[in-house]
Amino acid sequence: MRIFDVVVIGAGPAGEDVAARTAAAGLNTVIVAAGPAGEECSSWAGEPGKALLRPVLLHAEARGTPGIDPGALDVEAVLRHRDRMSGGRPDRPQARSLERAGITVVRGHGRLSGPRIVEVTSADGAILRLAARHAVAVCTGTRAALPPLPGLAALRPWTSREATSATRVPPRLAIVGGGAVAVEMATAWQALGSQVTLVIRGPELLPRVERFAAGLVADALRASGAELRFGTTVVAAARATDVRLTLSGGEVLHADELLLATGRVPRTDDLGLETVGLRPGGWLPSDDTCTVPGVTGDWLYAVGDVNQRAFLTHQGRYQARIAGTVIADRARNHPLDRSPWSRHTGTADLVAAPQVLFADPQVAFVGLTAADAARLGRDADIVDYDLGLVAGAHQHSPGYRGRARILLDPARGTLLGATFAGRGVAELLQSATFAITGEIPLDRLWHAVPAFPTLSEVWLRLLETYRDTAVPLRSGR
Amino acid sequence: MRIFDVVVIGAGPAGEDVAARTAAAGLNTVIVAAGPAGEECSSWAGEPGKALLRPVLLHAEARGTPGIDPGALDVEAVLRHRDRMSGGRPDRPQARSLERAGITVVRGHGRLSGPRIVEVTSADGAILRLAARHAVAVCTGTRAALPPLPGLAALRPWTSREATSATRVPPRLAIVGGGAVAVEMATAWQALGSQVTLVIRGPELLPRVERFAAGLVADALRASGAELRFGTTVVAAARATDVRLTLSGGEVLHADELLLATGRVPRTDDLGLETVGLRPGGWLPSDDTCTVPGVTGDWLYAVGDVNQRAFLTHQGRYQARIAGTVIADRARNHPLDRSPWSRHTGTADLVAAPQVLFADPQVAFVGLTAADAARLGRDADIVDYDLGLVAGAHQHSPGYRGRARILLDPARGTLLGATFAGRGVAELLQSATFAITGEIPLDRLWHAVPAFPTLSEVWLRLLETYRDTAVPLRSGR
Repeated sequence: MRIFDVVVIGAGPAGEDVAARTAAAGLNTVIVAAGPAGEECSSWAGEPGKALLRPVLLHAEARGTPGIDPGALDVEAVLRHRDRMSGGRPDRPQARSLERAGITVVRGHGRLSGPRIVEVTSADGAILRLAARHAVAVCTGTRAALPPLPGLAALRPWTSREATSATRVPPRLAIVGGGAVAVEMATAWQALGSQVTLVIRGPELLPRVERFAAGLVADALRASGAELRFGTTVVAAARATDVRLTLSGGEVLHADELLLATGRVPRTDDLGLETVGLRPGGWLPSDDTCTVPGVTGDWLYAVGDVNQRAFLTHQGRYQARIAGTVIADRARNHPLDRSPWSRHTGTADLVAAPQVLFADPQVAFVGLTAADAARLGRDADIVDYDLGLVAGAHQHSPGYRGRARILLDPARGTLLGATFAGRGVAELLQSATFAITGEIPLDRLWHAVPAFPTLSEVWLRLLETYRDTAVPLRSGR
Repeated sequence: MRIFDVVVIGAGPAGEDVAARTAAAGLNTVIVAAGPAGEECSSWAGEPGKALLRPVLLHAEARGTPGIDPGALDVEAVLRHRDRMSGGRPDRPQARSLERAGITVVRGHGRLSGPRIVEVTSADGAILRLAARHAVAVCTGTRAALPPLPGLAALRPWTSREATSATRVPPRLAIVGGGAVAVEMATAWQALGSQVTLVIRGPELLPRVERFAAGLVADALRASGAELRFGTTVVAAARATDVRLTLSGGEVLHADELLLATGRVPRTDDLGLETVGLRPGGWLPSDDTCTVPGVTGDWLYAVGDVNQRAFLTHQGRYQARIAGTVIADRARNHPLDRSPWSRHTGTADLVAAPQVLFADPQVAFVGLTAADAARLGRDADIVDYDLGLVAGAHQHSPGYRGRARILLDPARGTLLGATFAGRGVAELLQSATFAITGEIPLDRLWHAVPAFPTLSEVWLRLLETYRDTAVPLRSGR
């Protein structure tokens, strides 16, 4: 049995960052890595996916710009670029840098075997027991949720891993799902040469974003040649010479590859949660301090996707900073500050978690959507503006299509949410995140002048629209 | 003599917006337009310049992106695009929309002839006298400052107007100056096929920006083939078959066209300022309420470039909103709120005026630079980060070069300034403008999580660098 101050299970971005923060606070920290440290989240899906999308989206932008004829995309060069980008990026701490920071790295499968005890089973079957003086942090993330289709294994379906690492372009790609992964991979592979068909259970794409944004993305996917089948499920599937999907309407869809982008499930089924009185297999919810409630002694933390607070790498790292501070301060018997926005509370997860969908157009959003406000019964004034009317958009490309929406708290005059849909909006999002997080009141936002000519000018147009609208559209009850 | 509540002289963006605000407040407003309303600032330099630069910069970006081979820039197509873009943009109020807003438009040259009296001389020599009950707003802007060279007219030099409207590419273009216009036009014309030589009096480009940013731009200009001659002035010039410039070192520089980008002077020399006790020909400084001090009765306003507060279209429009509110509230005998960031004070001009230089790399900056802080004796902690190390930059392009700097108030923990130099940073600037304007404290900025993978992640890296730096670099006394 080896004793540490802190045991971290899972070496994705969240786990790495919890360990880095507790080690920096002087706590003796061990991290249990199932594969090479940092593998789970950075090598798969996130970065290689973006590496496919960057040339695809820039190519589309170049094609729409006067004076530039970018010809055809060099697909082989894009795939080689993606391979190079999968090797990690310069600011990722990898195993060696974890060790350099004084963190012990143990390889194997980590599993609780009682309060503050973690058993690690290595590849050769050896078992190492770790005891934690102060904290065990579960940072095991998620894996792809596969639908209950008979003969699923024989289909050899793609999940986000294969969709971002495939080395040849399937002539026909069927994608089941309509969320972020489905949309980004449809955008990428349709541009790289596949005939993409999206099979979407619901009536619309991207259920979590503003409807206008989902509509712009759907329009653009169709314009690029992708086929969108809404209100459709796969009832049977088989792979012979190709993949055959029987759809709920009875029709058979043929494809060369099948991507299942039907959500994620938490990696908690073989974690020993039952040994500490918790139910295995489900999400592991944590409170604003990332502490798992209902465990005596406040020693168990859940950080990152596994806690279901926000399925975003950057929010996982944010939670890791919070959790690291909470663990260190509890170890020092410092009291926790549970007020919103304190250094011990992950307030942003719930009110200011930003996300960018790298589709064409990009969709960048943070905070509440109109549907969120309605669902939460939260009063919100809604202001829309056609991004194409902004000088910066006009400069960006002739015929620019896009739209922005903000939600304002009518009582406090602060921003509750923002969505930008259009090319080149990704970096615009941080301004909205600052406005929400900083709780900047409306009369102060008027002094934040956007530079001419940029897309950011939409801020001024939104404020003017709000000022000049006699009866603003209002969400909530 | 026609009597109005408000007389606005000059129909550029600042004048248009003063008139729009006072008219919206119910004041009877007349605007004196020297040319077609809106011509001065939007048709020249600003928008056509950006219209040249957008394809140029995107072409460079595409060339650096794996899988895209954009071939050569189609120069004729870029020039045609620029011509189309010079026709105005969708959200510019033009003369007709001014009239639709109830504003009287008078064409001619406006000139004060005493307190609250403006004489307008039309093209046919007729004189119309206008009296202002409440306010006269001078919004006449600037014109290019030409150096005192003998035989200047015979040289037929370009100013920013000609540089952005030229219809053929000069094989050799000499540019005198090292500021924003010189740098942007050097970037554009070198890419469009000219051999550009910059003749710069000082030792460096872009004296108002951070040195690292000026250095990146200088490196990139040189790499593109432009020649930069620092510490050099033109002592004599003549045009025969070509333009011949005798430089201070004695050398003769040959060029096909000469762009003089040597600053701006205010259009105040024929404004009748002497009839109200002011000196003609100089800048017309105004206070935070845009009121010209030293004129009895607080009826004279100076708005936009002419007041020397900030030489930026967007700040001119900001001042116009402030001035419009001040004029309207004074007309109603409402007291003015002179505290910072009130609706009557143009606080942002001095502490949060953002600017984007559309060079390669882009330089986006707001608030104080390190040199500003030192000059003002203002304590500031300085934090730098290599933008190329950010995951979003790595995704943007392999080998991305860039740098970010922020200045923090060590006592208050708020942002004083930010500079981003690199491709694609233009929209990132608004976040810094929000942080300064919103006076968001450092411990709150930690909750403003940047979306992965974007350039905005540099915010997190800057905060981490500040946290982990034992002794921050400090500017000021």
